[in-house]
Amino acid sequence: MEEQFLINSIGRKIPAVVNGQPQIPFQGIGCYKPEIRRHGPRVSSSADYPLDGNKVVISLEEALIKSGIRNGSVISTHHHFRNGDLIAVQIFSIAHKLGLRDLVWAPSASFDCHIPLIEFLKDGTIHHIEGSMNGELGRATSDGFMQGIGILRSHGGRYQAIQDGELKIDIAVIAAPAADEFGNATGDRGKAACGSLGFALADSQFADKIIVITDNLIPFPCVPWQIQGNYVDYVVVTDQIGIPEKIVSGTTVVTKSPERLLLAELTAKFCDEAGIIRDGFSFQTGSGGTSLATTIFFSEIMQQKGIKARFARGGSNKYLVEMLENGLIDYILDGQTFDLEGVRSIRENNNHIATSPFTSYNYHGKGNFASMLDVVLLGATEVDTQFNANVVTHSDGVLLHGIGGWQNCLFARCTILPVPLFRDRIPVIRDQVTTLCGPGELIDVVITERGIAINPLRTDLIEKLKNSSLPIKTIEELKSEAEAICGIPDNPVFTDKPIAIVKWVDGTVLDTVWERH
Amino acid sequence: MEEQFLINSIGRKIPAVVNGQPQIPFQGIGCYKPEIRRHGPRVSSSADYPLDGNKVVISLEEALIKSGIRNGSVISTHHHFRNGDLIAVQIFSIAHKLGLRDLVWAPSASFDCHIPLIEFLKDGTIHHIEGSMNGELGRATSDGFMQGIGILRSHGGRYQAIQDGELKIDIAVIAAPAADEFGNATGDRGKAACGSLGFALADSQFADKIIVITDNLIPFPCVPWQIQGNYVDYVVVTDQIGIPEKIVSGTTVVTKSPERLLLAELTAKFCDEAGIIRDGFSFQTGSGGTSLATTIFFSEIMQQKGIKARFARGGSNKYLVEMLENGLIDYILDGQTFDLEGVRSIRENNNHIATSPFTSYNYHGKGNFASMLDVVLLGATEVDTQFNANVVTHSDGVLLHGIGGWQNCLFARCTILPVPLFRDRIPVIRDQVTTLCGPGELIDVVITERGIAINPLRTDLIEKLKNSSLPIKTIEELKSEAEAICGIPDNPVFTDKPIAIVKWVDGTVLDTVWERH
Repeated sequence: MEEQFLINSIGRKIPAVVNGQPQIPFQGIGCYKPEIRRHGPRVSSSADYPLDGNKVVISLEEALIKSGIRNGSVISTHHHFRNGDLIAVQIFSIAHKLGLRDLVWAPSASFDCHIPLIEFLKDGTIHHIEGSMNGELGRATSDGFMQGIGILRSHGGRYQAIQDGELKIDIAVIAAPAADEFGNATGDRGKAACGSLGFALADSQFADKIIVITDNLIPFPCVPWQIQGNYVDYVVVTDQIGIPEKIVSGTTVVTKSPERLLLAELTAKFCDEAGIIRDGFSFQTGSGGTSLATTIFFSEIMQQKGIKARFARGGSNKYLVEMLENGLIDYILDGQTFDLEGVRSIRENNNHIATSPFTSYNYHGKGNFASMLDVVLLGATEVDTQFNANVVTHSDGVLLHGIGGWQNCLFARCTILPVPLFRDRIPVIRDQVTTLCGPGELIDVVITERGIAINPLRTDLIEKLKNSSLPIKTIEELKSEAEAICGIPDNPVFTDKPIAIVKWVDGTVLDTVWERH
Repeated sequence: MEEQFLINSIGRKIPAVVNGQPQIPFQGIGCYKPEIRRHGPRVSSSADYPLDGNKVVISLEEALIKSGIRNGSVISTHHHFRNGDLIAVQIFSIAHKLGLRDLVWAPSASFDCHIPLIEFLKDGTIHHIEGSMNGELGRATSDGFMQGIGILRSHGGRYQAIQDGELKIDIAVIAAPAADEFGNATGDRGKAACGSLGFALADSQFADKIIVITDNLIPFPCVPWQIQGNYVDYVVVTDQIGIPEKIVSGTTVVTKSPERLLLAELTAKFCDEAGIIRDGFSFQTGSGGTSLATTIFFSEIMQQKGIKARFARGGSNKYLVEMLENGLIDYILDGQTFDLEGVRSIRENNNHIATSPFTSYNYHGKGNFASMLDVVLLGATEVDTQFNANVVTHSDGVLLHGIGGWQNCLFARCTILPVPLFRDRIPVIRDQVTTLCGPGELIDVVITERGIAINPLRTDLIEKLKNSSLPIKTIEELKSEAEAICGIPDNPVFTDKPIAIVKWVDGTVLDTVWERH
């Protein structure tokens, strides 16, 4: 079949049809308004479920078979166990053993623990992945090992796609650190405790069949029921669902690199001078080493000023928890929990609230929390002179990352990308990003260790910082500085075969990831 | 139009079409399995909502107009304010002022505070009510003042009908004792505090437009968000949404009547001898005067035995809260909160959990909590010798009550109706109930102050109690005793005009309430 391509409103070439489904090209931010109704899974009858509420079956294989697993089934998992997940590989090993083909895997994110799935991509057990292809899975996708085309979505975009019926999940497998026989489940306790289970919410609400698998069956009722048993078909009890030390770390490590510390300090100072750090403000700083350093700088500024934040959005970690417990933050609204202190806090502190992509990120809702944030700090692999940014591929064109909540967070009142000027002698600021994941009009500030560029659209911020002692520069100046040091790297050469598409938060197609030549 | 009638599987005559919608006759318990998908309301775009999350509009009238109120709109309210609700009448007064007609009111229950709506039934502003018609509203319905036919549903049946798209709500108005500008709302604090807001859950999830109205706007985030702002279109701030003393009582009154106390004691003794009151059991006793007495007897038996219950289902009250705090109950799973102690406990105690008709009662889910209860105590206006029971009409045929959670609770492992043998010299046990609300096969025991009748289907209970000193009798014996004292009252005479139908938990029609001659 001849591949048909379209050019979307931001000038990117995208396939008209992906995995047999016609696509809607990106039309601009807030322009596409779907005239559809929310997806309705099949209505169940309690007559088909045990009156005593006991939905336990003997094994994951039995649960999958009872759920009607067949060729082409769409199967979802969540990523709250991060690199400690033991379930996704089991599911597809069972499917492979059953001789099934052309399955679709719809994880909320993928990690190196999922590398064994590359074999199932190659042999056709899995047709394609909708979610994220990180690390080696991304590289395998870039190398053309996936039969279908991968679909990259943000966390909010995943909720939107499931809610809108764009991604119809046949079977959701929800690994749970604690669950009861009825299927009520929580992530905040048990040996595989991971905090929130919010990334599995859409799956529980909209999949046709839902399996909860746990290594910690507790008597009914399992509360808080982050996942509600009333959505659950089967419960499986197994020895181990995750590797605790790969799920959460006991400690979260702040960067020691002088450049990264400088970057963090510049970021905090910028926020302060821009008037963002004020009483009752809100922020989302992230959980990488530089982000943690920024969080600590924020905390110091807040203490000096004697102010507190109304809320911080997590990924939570011990630094945020400390701020909550010291009264510097009223609430943590937590999407995922990164360390043991975060898990303890979300379990014990009623002001540490488990959130979900529905509350925080879904663009096809009646608003969401992300746009209410005063400031969000995000990473990027590349930024271009139009402030467009990339988070999924590197400048060599290899797909290596998922989108996460990145696109959703761009709607904050001030979006800042604190990025190094170059990585491994490859400049971060480019004429054009390899893959466009976020339109520049939503990106307000790029902060590097050698200077800060404010998006010309943000005349208010430019005005506010005009007498600043901070190194305010143009994005072009920053680009030139990097190129003076590193030179300009060659652009990668691609075939005309799409290996993945990047969805925007509204389900339209923003860009294409191409197979490398 | 000639009215067409059908006879359903339990022998009751029902209208084939109600308010223009074809009806499905009751087919037996667990027999009707719908081949449908869950109702999908229109998908929204965050582009149409304020980025700062502020959805406040100036008045309820403005919110209703912006929500597109028009002739025939279906408008829902919740009943957590019980007889202290100030909102429902306001809504229809606005609609009347706007000259609208043929509206449908879909409350989760109605109270005497809604008597002013009778005028709107008479003048055609409201076409009919789907929910419950209690007291004077019921009498007005019985007297033929409603243009359409009322639809009586259980709490679970209301969730089922909304979820299944059988009851499509255009505009839900959710009065909230605390809310933020985004529409997150909770019932557990504020001057109109009512505890849980669970009865408004379906409305928030499935209505096309949702208005939150509050007299207590708090800064974002309002937690716990019993109602999630992501579903909400508009927020209205007003002076007063409810009358506190009619919402909750400071004290809940135990019966002082010797007959009722005897009834309570017999009930508790029966449960004990039947082996129901054992370590880890679960119960739902209700919140009437006799029920409270039974709760206290339960508590005494449990203390004597040194056992505790895993959970009690509320309506919560101070007696249940005391048992929770004294360690006699692990969890209260609370559907509605009846007194100030209940409100305090649900706010402060993490083991006092707000539930909803979705978790507790929805028959078109994957099971629900009601069937997991070891024992439930329910009232009835009439029971017949087949153990069928009535809760909506009295023996004179007047509609006076809603169904509440009554039908849903019948699925408990043991359903007991503790009822007086007669009320105002009218026997409770009849040859045939005036209106059939619950099939006898689900009703296990009828307990009166003069004897206990076990349903012959429950051979296990009959066996267990065969040597009991309790006054075990047949239902016919109880009926004869009552008739010997009171005589047999005349049956009411009806026209052939249906004024309301009684839905079963699966959306089929169980019986009809007729206009009185």
